[in-house]
Amino acid sequence: MHQVMEWNEDVSDAVKRELGSHQVCLMNVLGSPGAGKTSTIVELIARLRDKYRIGVIEGDITGTIDAETIDKLGLPVVQLDTDGACHIEAMSIQHILPHFNLDELDVLMVENIGNLVCPAEFNIGESFRLALLSIPEGDDKVEKYPLIFSTSDALALNKYDLKEYFGFDDARVERNAKAANPDISVFRVSSRTGEGLDELTAWVDGKIAAALGRA
Amino acid sequence: MHQVMEWNEDVSDAVKRELGSHQVCLMNVLGSPGAGKTSTIVELIARLRDKYRIGVIEGDITGTIDAETIDKLGLPVVQLDTDGACHIEAMSIQHILPHFNLDELDVLMVENIGNLVCPAEFNIGESFRLALLSIPEGDDKVEKYPLIFSTSDALALNKYDLKEYFGFDDARVERNAKAANPDISVFRVSSRTGEGLDELTAWVDGKIAAALGRA
Repeated sequence: MHQVMEWNEDVSDAVKRELGSHQVCLMNVLGSPGAGKTSTIVELIARLRDKYRIGVIEGDITGTIDAETIDKLGLPVVQLDTDGACHIEAMSIQHILPHFNLDELDVLMVENIGNLVCPAEFNIGESFRLALLSIPEGDDKVEKYPLIFSTSDALALNKYDLKEYFGFDDARVERNAKAANPDISVFRVSSRTGEGLDELTAWVDGKIAAALGRA
Repeated sequence: MHQVMEWNEDVSDAVKRELGSHQVCLMNVLGSPGAGKTSTIVELIARLRDKYRIGVIEGDITGTIDAETIDKLGLPVVQLDTDGACHIEAMSIQHILPHFNLDELDVLMVENIGNLVCPAEFNIGESFRLALLSIPEGDDKVEKYPLIFSTSDALALNKYDLKEYFGFDDARVERNAKAANPDISVFRVSSRTGEGLDELTAWVDGKIAAALGRA
């Protein structure tokens, strides 16, 4: 197992170098099934597509539902079907890159497999990592699944319109996330009400600009 | 990998034999983080504890939050800390069984790790398997994560009180679940409103009775 992880690390460096040679950065988006990864990517694309040339890799265990949603936006999208596997590895990203014209992209947004556990362990060549936690999942998730939060650069609390309904304790989540990772940025967002999406977009914009050396 | 899976299968048979020799059956409860596994187990215990002697194995990646919740009920509960692993294997159940007095139990309820992917692959010696899918996760999950639904005996659509809010299409989920697994029973439940819990309890009761040869 250790050997496989080392191998993945090496390939993630190669992926990052290849993307860098084309002035492309990669955003890794992680979260549970149904946390709102696709919707959030769609919202970010709507707000950033005039500024950056965006491509998308849609990770799925099977099927093409999310890839079809993104495809309607008219951006380069490639589906990565893991055929049952619970996470994406850098090797898969390396194999998929030739399907893009990297010289015509600034950003690759990768929607990882819906899973709070395994994807957190794998660096796929990303410049930064965005974790989503949706309100209905409960405010104990940072304590129960710490790795994904300790390794992410930002945490978006999604479906925030349901905070009162679930009695979700943001302060608890933010406190635990910052204890695991003092540098993490925390956002409260809702695709339904639009709350917080501009703030999240500004943060993503800043990370892309920094990764591309345009900050 | 194949070898490890075979090994797990062999141990799951041994676990099932050991449980059977003490007239104990095992229910494996699976679902995403925040799908409501702990709450549902608590509701089932409340309705079945006068009829069966129940023990609980709480699978967690880290921490003791759910085990503490169950512990307050005054039942035998043992926490299985996977130390980061994304699922429970039969070997772990085998190691944990000596912590119970099996002659004083009828049922072991196992709360698996919150994950729609990996736990579905591992038989842990269960007599039956209950999958939870909560409404906020979305009605496309059977198509995206088919294995957990095709291998479960029942599917409980939890947080059903949110069906209208999310425009959740039950018919789609039920159709896809039955296509993957014609024998699956589908329930609509809510710990908040109590809806469907008696029906789910009656089904669990029937599965336990059948497994113990008391049907």
